[in-house]
Order: sequence, then structure tokens, then C-alpha cells
Amino acid sequence: MPSAIPVILAGLCFLLHKPTCCSSSDILVVPVDGSHWVNMKVILEELHSRGHNITVLRSARSWYIPSDSSIYTSINVSMLEDESDREAYNKILKDVIECRKSLSFVRSFCQQHVLTTLLSKGHEILARVAGKILDDPVFMKKMQDAKFDLILTDPALTLGVILGSYLKLPMVFNVRWINNGEGHFTIAPSPVSYVPVQGSELDDQMDFQERTKNMLLYLYSVAEQHFILNPKYSDLLQRHFPPGTDLLSLQRSADIWLLRADFVFEFPRPTMPNVVYIGGFQGKKASHLPADLEDFMQSSGEHGVVVMSLGTFVSALPRDTTEAIAAAFAQLPQKVVWRFSGERPSSLGNNTLLVNWLPQNDILGHPKTRIFVAHGGTNGMYEAIYNGVPVLGMPLLFDQFDNVHRLKVRGAARVVEAKSITKENFLEALKDVLETPSYRTNMQHLSQLHHDRPMTPMDTAIFWIEYVIRNKGAAHLRAAGFSLPWYSYFCLDVALFLIALVGAFIWAAVFTCRLLCCRRFRRKIKAE
Amino acid sequence: MPSAIPVILAGLCFLLHKPTCCSSSDILVVPVDGSHWVNMKVILEELHSRGHNITVLRSARSWYIPSDSSIYTSINVSMLEDESDREAYNKILKDVIECRKSLSFVRSFCQQHVLTTLLSKGHEILARVAGKILDDPVFMKKMQDAKFDLILTDPALTLGVILGSYLKLPMVFNVRWINNGEGHFTIAPSPVSYVPVQGSELDDQMDFQERTKNMLLYLYSVAEQHFILNPKYSDLLQRHFPPGTDLLSLQRSADIWLLRADFVFEFPRPTMPNVVYIGGFQGKKASHLPADLEDFMQSSGEHGVVVMSLGTFVSALPRDTTEAIAAAFAQLPQKVVWRFSGERPSSLGNNTLLVNWLPQNDILGHPKTRIFVAHGGTNGMYEAIYNGVPVLGMPLLFDQFDNVHRLKVRGAARVVEAKSITKENFLEALKDVLETPSYRTNMQHLSQLHHDRPMTPMDTAIFWIEYVIRNKGAAHLRAAGFSLPWYSYFCLDVALFLIALVGAFIWAAVFTCRLLCCRRFRRKIKAE
Repeated sequence: MPSAIPVILAGLCFLLHKPTCCSSSDILVVPVDGSHWVNMKVILEELHSRGHNITVLRSARSWYIPSDSSIYTSINVSMLEDESDREAYNKILKDVIECRKSLSFVRSFCQQHVLTTLLSKGHEILARVAGKILDDPVFMKKMQDAKFDLILTDPALTLGVILGSYLKLPMVFNVRWINNGEGHFTIAPSPVSYVPVQGSELDDQMDFQERTKNMLLYLYSVAEQHFILNPKYSDLLQRHFPPGTDLLSLQRSADIWLLRADFVFEFPRPTMPNVVYIGGFQGKKASHLPADLEDFMQSSGEHGVVVMSLGTFVSALPRDTTEAIAAAFAQLPQKVVWRFSGERPSSLGNNTLLVNWLPQNDILGHPKTRIFVAHGGTNGMYEAIYNGVPVLGMPLLFDQFDNVHRLKVRGAARVVEAKSITKENFLEALKDVLETPSYRTNMQHLSQLHHDRPMTPMDTAIFWIEYVIRNKGAAHLRAAGFSLPWYSYFCLDVALFLIALVGAFIWAAVFTCRLLCCRRFRRKIKAE
Repeated sequence: MPSAIPVILAGLCFLLHKPTCCSSSDILVVPVDGSHWVNMKVILEELHSRGHNITVLRSARSWYIPSDSSIYTSINVSMLEDESDREAYNKILKDVIECRKSLSFVRSFCQQHVLTTLLSKGHEILARVAGKILDDPVFMKKMQDAKFDLILTDPALTLGVILGSYLKLPMVFNVRWINNGEGHFTIAPSPVSYVPVQGSELDDQMDFQERTKNMLLYLYSVAEQHFILNPKYSDLLQRHFPPGTDLLSLQRSADIWLLRADFVFEFPRPTMPNVVYIGGFQGKKASHLPADLEDFMQSSGEHGVVVMSLGTFVSALPRDTTEAIAAAFAQLPQKVVWRFSGERPSSLGNNTLLVNWLPQNDILGHPKTRIFVAHGGTNGMYEAIYNGVPVLGMPLLFDQFDNVHRLKVRGAARVVEAKSITKENFLEALKDVLETPSYRTNMQHLSQLHHDRPMTPMDTAIFWIEYVIRNKGAAHLRAAGFSLPWYSYFCLDVALFLIALVGAFIWAAVFTCRLLCCRRFRRKIKAE
């Protein structure tokens, strides 16, 4: 019974410390589908429990976002999902695996090119659907009449940003990626000498060649933004916004950026006052597993369990890869739980359990779990950090290469290339991570730092969302520099002026000297 | 009685939420004297209450830091105070008042020059005393044997930084100024297009001329750092640290920067992950005033009270200025409380009470206080913000010009020039701030934002100090860029390489074209 006292006290504290805010505010939410929705949903649940009314814009063809929910009202609108399908990702996976065959310096550019093709098509659709919505007077009247107190959006796709800016609503981002890069690059100074660009697979210690690669990738992303992405929106923005508005200026007008990052994972880099870090905010103490899974875990004895999952997007690895993986697993003394879809590998061992779905956080938090074989999606990596489980990374797409690299340089993960997996090299890598204690101790150190925070990331997120509602924005945290043209932002006009001034001064000095010298010379000649 | 419940609960919560840390850690503190000590003292009191053992290094000739204290043990060492005196500040005040007579563009440079003279002499003394300490084997053995868990220092002076780095202790800064500028400039990217340099009296919206001034002041501060301050330490650092160490590299190795800033006051600007904002951490609810002062406040009736204080450093304003101020006060229907030292002005009115010392925060928090006439020291400005009292600023030295300018652009203060005060213009300014409601409403808006935080700044400071003790540093929050040489940090080597590459490519293309053209031309001639 005495052990109940801290719990009761904690409950009382929560009630007492809950800042009074804007009870029953109306929040418009424009989420992104797929794994991003997982990140938005947990915040919406918390906001709902605090009495806010939530309206979610979703596609009628949404993959994960249900139309009926007890925590929000949904409105169907035309969205990216209407014109694209998930099969596209398996096609991209094949292209990326091709890229991985090139030299290390070249493959990041190859992958970036694959991504550009996807982004270009995606933003074309996004600009079209945003146009449709803004051009629909009935829908827009409805939105305006709703008098939302806030828009909460994931700016990886652009509809939320455009709609929120049009409606002039206080805006909070739940963000990791934006346009063509990691969120910070849109808002904070990012010296490419030590801030690795998305897709570079670099860290914050770069030699000359790596800095050259990083700089080129950065220039590529700037060019992509200005010559490929921005033009898709120019017509739309011209019709509905003041002259000079571009996508970047709308994005930079957000009040608070809830950034799904934590510096136990990201490399330390410049940031801004309105960026709030909530990396790992979905983390929670592991719950009990379903009885059959628990029995399986316990049956592993002292050897423990290997957990493997490749996330929500990719359903099909090449057949020979899955066979090699299954054969390697069969050689382990550990048991294996593998989230798998597709044809059952013929080389599957008795120690391996295939499942359609995993309670991923709960199984990673289980004391029998020894290692997490993962594609390196952000959510999975934070769950691994939360639970202190070392990772064998097998990145496939997008940010996954960078993610596993981040854990690798900290000694908490090893990385294998999906393109060249054989039974032997996969088994060797598995055994290495299982048998070398430093992977686990390093990951547990990261985990300890990740938990050592003054507030939970979820409480932090909720505080700042309600802060923006209470104060009708957070303009005083937004830097003024973004309103300047780029040459003024970088002070190129001032530098040119000063150089011209110094040049003129030197020229005048030389001219005067010459004049004086010549006169003296002439006088000398005269005198002679 | 029911009203006691929240208080009891809050107490329980505090006990429950107090992170368990490093009970009875040993903390070495190297403070800065004067108003900076006020900032350090409140943190030391809190650390002491949490059971830490504190050792303070002080000068035997310290102005404010007592040798006997119930919260710390003190050790006397040779410090800046041994070779400088407070009269120097009155001499500087005269020089600055002279500077204020020049044109707006010029006076910042003039003031900066006055400051450089002071800094140059100060750092000469500082390097000498640091050398004495590091060269004293008995003292250094004692320091090493003490096995401190942390050094907490204000890096406005350099002894703490040098000693902490030499002893390889985890290091936390309690900082606002460092070397020759505001703390951020040493650690965070600071685009001079919208980040005003110390002493510029500019804000974050600058036209071309202002950006030019800001850039020149920035270049001045860089030159001052490299050509005036750094050389003073080169001999000392060469003898005691690895080759290549300079003052900046030691300062940038601090684990956490507790920055005495808040963005209701500072302009939003880039920051770093190991910068924690504690601006206004000394703020607390006003206590009751002493009975005689309370009676004086109440006697002001509906008109209220004007409070005036010019801080701890400057004891003497020019005689004609104090006479003009006293005469202006005498014309007011308000009562006036004036913290004053020196000869009593002959024009003093019956409504004005001269006092040697003020319980400044308590009087600013009094409901009768209408306006704060202040020199613009940081502590006073945060107390004014905390209590929502508008300011009539009369800056005299250092950052005070910038401080009052920050409140002025937010409509919460008016500024008068000490050099040109007359009874008439001072009275007009007083009446303006007293009678225009916007000064008060703007200041109260800032106050509201300042209080709207997830944690108090003091709890934040304590959390991060104990965090560094618990984790023996915070290396994962320190950016890697500082280890690069400046040309690599700015990627100038990469840029030059890429330009050369493009140049070579263009040259080769032109050369090939010419070659081909010439051949065709020659063939043509031959054919003819």
C-alpha cells in the first residue's frame, strides 16, 4: 500500500501543474499519412484528453488515418493519397538498391536523384490539391467560420502550411522533414562544415572530401528547392497570397516547430528559439505482451530474442535477401520474432516466429530482447533508444541510411547493406552485435541521457501547443532575418559596399602618391 | 484553511519531482564581482539548499563577495579586484558621456574604443593572476586533490574558464557577457544582418546603413578578440595547455551555458543545443516592504510612485544632471523613491525620498509603483519585466544602451540621454511614460509571456547544473564545428576547390572549342 503514495502524489502533481489553458480550443490538424500519422496520433490523444476539440483533414483514400474516431472529427479532402499509391515505394526501393551499387561518393547523389523524381511528382499533386481546396469557396467559408484557434500540421507535405497561412491561424509544426530536407535546414543556420545534409550518410566529423560531398549535396538541395519545388506552387501562391510569397516564407512563419529530434541521436547543431525538441515523445514504458508472444519470449532462455521489423512502408524485400536472412536466423541460438509479409522463406528455422504485426515498443522493452534488426525509421530508432536495445540496421529508403549511421558512429549499431546481404555476412553481423558488449552499453548510455530531461517530450509538446493557443502565436520567438532578401541576409550588399570603399580608398591613395611623385620628378627634371 | 491545500501539494510535488542527483557534490565556483555576483549568489543558495558543497574563489579585496558565508567555503586568491578599483568606472562614465556627443553612427565605435581600453587593461591583469595561480604548485595540488565534480563560473572574466579547463572539470557557465561581447557571439552563428552586435543600439530590423554599422562593429570585435585579447593569454596557454589552445577554444568547451537571457527581451536569433535560457531567474514574488517605505508608498494615493535607481557601479552623476532630475521630480504629482548617493540636490522636492539602498524587486512589485527610472542594467530590466513596470531608461555604460533599446522597440520603455538631461526634457519624458497607457500594457504583455514557461528559470538552471554533475559533462550537446580551422568551418577550402574545378572545366571547354575552331579554320584556308 505505501507504494501507492508516490503514484497518487504524481497524479495530484499532474493536476496541479497542468497549465490552465484555453479550455476547449478548436484545433485544425493536417497530418501526413503513414508512419508520420503515428507521431501525430499520440499528440492528438493527449490534446483530446485535455478537452480540446480536434478536426482532422484526411483523404477519403487514407492509408492509416481512420474517418471515425472518438478523439477527432474528420473532414475528407483531396490529398496526396488520392493520386499516389504505396506500390510506388517498392519501385523506389528497387531504384535505391541500384544506387547502393555505386561508389560511396556517388550513391548519395543517385539516391537524391531518385528522391527528386518522387518529390517532383508529389509536389505537383500537392500544389494541385491545395489549389482545389483554396478555390472552393464553400469549403473555405466553412473553414473560416469554424474559427480555429490553431493549426497543427506535419509540414513534410504542404497542404497544412498553405491552408494555415491562408486562414492566418497560429501555426505549430510537428516536424521532422520538410520539402527536400531535415526540418532544421529550413529554419536554422546550418554550416555544412559540420552539419551533415540529409542523405549524405555523414556525421559531424568530416574530412575535406566529405565536406566537399556535403557541400555539393547542400547545393543540390537548394537548387531542387528553387528550380523544381518552388515553381510548382508559384501559380497557386500568386493567386491567393501577397506578392513575393513563396513556400519557404510560409513555412518560416510557423510559430513553434515541435521537432522530432533529440541530441542523443542528432548531431549537435545550431537551432532557433522557436524550435522545441520532442524526439522520442511517443516513447512509453513497455506493457505486457500478449500471452502467446510472452511465452515465445520466455522460451528463449538465457540466449534471448532477436526482433526484426522493416516498418510500415516496404512490404517486399527481394526473395534471395529474405532467404539469406531466414537462413542466418536459423543458425542462431536465440529465438527470433520477425514482422514479415510476403511468401514464407523456405530456409526459415524453427527458432523464428513470423508475425504480421508487432507491439514494437513493448517487445523492445522486454528483458529478453537482445537486438533490434531494423530498417532505421525514426520512430523505431527512438523506441530502440528508449529501451536501450542495440540495433542491426538495414536501411532501405529516405532518412533510414542517415538514421542508422547516427547510431553506428555512437557505437550503438552496426549497419548492413540490403543490396549485398548473404547468409554469411548477415550472420556475422548479427553475432557481432549480439556478442560484443559495447553495442549494448553504448545504447544504454544513450538511453540514460535520453531519459534525463526536465520534462517528458510529450508534456513539452503539449505545453508549447497550448502556449501558442494562449498567446495567439509566438511571434516574439520568430527570427526577423527571413524577411530579408538572400543577399542582405548574408550581408553581401554590405560586404560589396565595404570592399568598394576600401578599393576606392586604396586607388585614391595610389593615385595621390603617383601624382605627388610625378610632380617631384618633373620638378627634378626642370631643376636639372 | 482550504487555500493551504495547493501549497502543501506544491511542496509535495517539488519533493517528488526533485531529480535524484549526486547528493553532496563538490562544486567549485569562480564568480564575477559586482552585479554579476547577485546572479551567482541566488543559484548558490539554491544549490546549497539541495545539499551541494560549494567552494567559492574570491579576491581578498572583493567588493561584494563575503568571505564568511553559511552556504559556501571561500578561498582567497589574487583576482581582478586586487589591481583595479571602482573609481575606474566613474572615469569611464565620463568618457562614455563624451562619446554620446558624437553622431549616432560614430558613437558606438567611440564607446567600443573606451571599452577596449578597459578590457585590454583588465585582461592583462586577468592573464597575470591566472598565471600566478597555475604556477603555484601548492595551490594547484589542493585544487586537484579536492576532486570537484563541477566548476560553475561566470565567464565574463577568464579565471574560471582557465582553471576549470586546466583541472579538466565538467564546466557550466552562468553567462551574459564573455570577453568582448554578448555570450551567444562566442558559441552560436550570429548573422549580422539581423543579430545586433553588442553596443550597436540596433534591433533586428536594420536598413542598409544600420547593417553596415553592425558589420563594422562585428569586425571590430573580431579584431579586438584576435589582436588585443588573445595575445594577452598566449604565453600562459602555451605553458599550461596543449599547442593550439586559445581562449575561445577553452570557452567553447563548456558543457552547458546558462544564458541570462529571455526572448521577451532579447531578439530571436540562432542558438545552440547546450545553451539554456535562464533570463530573469532571480525574479520572485514581491515581499512586504519595510513599514516606513510602505507608509511612503501608500501616501502617494492614486498618483502612485516613481522609483529611480542607477545600479551598483555608478555612484556619481554630474551635479547639474542630478539637479535637473530632482527639479523635474519635484514637479510631479507622484511620490518618488530615489536610490541616491552623493551630495543632496538643492532642487529636491518634498515628494522625493532619497535612500541608500532599495529592496528593488519588492518595490517594483508594489501596486503603487508606476514607472522605473533606471540605468538599464540587465538585472533591473528583468525585474521590471517580471513585475510589468514600464521603464524610463537613462543608460550610462556597457550593455545598458542596448538593454533599454530592447524595451524601447517593444514600446515598454522610453530612453533619455544622460548627457543632455534638462529639467524640461526629463519631466516631459517622465510624464509621457506615466500618462501614455501603451507603455504599461506593452510591458505587462512582456511580463505575461515571461511568466509563461514550462519550468521556472531557476529550476531550469538547477536541473542542468545537476545534469552535468550526474552525466560528468554534456559532450553530446557540444557542436563539433569549433575544432575546425576557420577556413574549414566556413568551407572556404571546399568553395575554392569547387570554383577552381569549375574554372578548370570552363577553361578546358573553351580551349577545346578554340582548338577545334582553329583546325576547321585552317582546313578552310587550306581548302581555299
